[in-house]
Amino acid sequence: MENKGILFVVSAPAGCGKDTILNEFFKRNKTAGYAVSATTRAPREGEVNGVHYHFLTVEDFKSKIGAGEVLEYTEYCGNYYGTLKKSVDDLINSGKDAVLKIEVEGAMNIRKKFPDACLIFILPPSLEVLENRLRGRATETEEKIKERTNQAKTELKFAENYDYVIVNDDLNEAVEDMLSVFRAEKLRKQRCEEIIKNISGEKH
Amino acid sequence: MENKGILFVVSAPAGCGKDTILNEFFKRNKTAGYAVSATTRAPREGEVNGVHYHFLTVEDFKSKIGAGEVLEYTEYCGNYYGTLKKSVDDLINSGKDAVLKIEVEGAMNIRKKFPDACLIFILPPSLEVLENRLRGRATETEEKIKERTNQAKTELKFAENYDYVIVNDDLNEAVEDMLSVFRAEKLRKQRCEEIIKNISGEKH
Repeated sequence: MENKGILFVVSAPAGCGKDTILNEFFKRNKTAGYAVSATTRAPREGEVNGVHYHFLTVEDFKSKIGAGEVLEYTEYCGNYYGTLKKSVDDLINSGKDAVLKIEVEGAMNIRKKFPDACLIFILPPSLEVLENRLRGRATETEEKIKERTNQAKTELKFAENYDYVIVNDDLNEAVEDMLSVFRAEKLRKQRCEEIIKNISGEKH
Repeated sequence: MENKGILFVVSAPAGCGKDTILNEFFKRNKTAGYAVSATTRAPREGEVNGVHYHFLTVEDFKSKIGAGEVLEYTEYCGNYYGTLKKSVDDLINSGKDAVLKIEVEGAMNIRKKFPDACLIFILPPSLEVLENRLRGRATETEEKIKERTNQAKTELKFAENYDYVIVNDDLNEAVEDMLSVFRAEKLRKQRCEEIIKNISGEKH
């Protein structure tokens, strides 16, 4: 109902089906788009600058951090990964909702710098199901599976700090949940102050 | 996702299409039901006790007010109209969402006694449209139309105190909005504390 979009942050432990849900979600929601992340790692074959990532030099990335232009970032295997404020602003200023798929620590940083953001956490139906899903991938060693399950347990503690939780038990239900959250969040009174003022005639 | 239902309060000035939206809404949402109001007025032909209203004597109604069993009430043309706490509790304890269609003052009272309630306000696209809709009914005098428009202006000021606002510009969109609000509200973190605890294993 408002012209400006909303920043949605989506987090989930590995194995919760976050990517599958979001893929289906984007087929049915045409007013939201991914905020493209920035990285200092080299592009892989087929990766397009500005589409898959904003590819930056380490120098550029650090200078953007210094200038307050990076909402959150992390270092992994010697490379920086992060979210440029501009990526989010460009989307929401064009009236689209921005979706950021990031892990829990990054989400908490977004919350601080973007208090209007709406945070969604995807939960597995149970820890047992999650462990079985990770095992089902069959690409990981038993040790790796235990490690990921423990990592998931740590991440689940952060669900408390999110605005919405979606349990991914049935994919279609989870996608419907996600669609409803995006729609309903726009109708929350705090986001409609202008509309209320316009309609009640206070602005005429 | 939780076993207990949610109390939803829906308010709108006359002419905003509240009844039409709710009728369509109830065709598509099967987990919500109206909380039946209580009144001391005599049943009209065809009205069934416990379905259209809980018909009470004035003595009964007053005694329930004294016992704190009435969430909100009003007197109109010498009769009492109100919401029994039991009507709401019976629905939400059975896992259904309860819908209360009441005016703004009553809604504010519900908020005080039922802080978990979710309040939805339906807005007209503009005051001009509202006035035209009231005029379109053609059953009212010009004076009555002016009176209702002024009444609507007063009521619109209360929209600020609701959780969600839905603009009824297009009926189908407004119904979709309502469905989304009911679905998303269940996913709000505050309503899912138990689920988070259960899944993160804190309760095992």
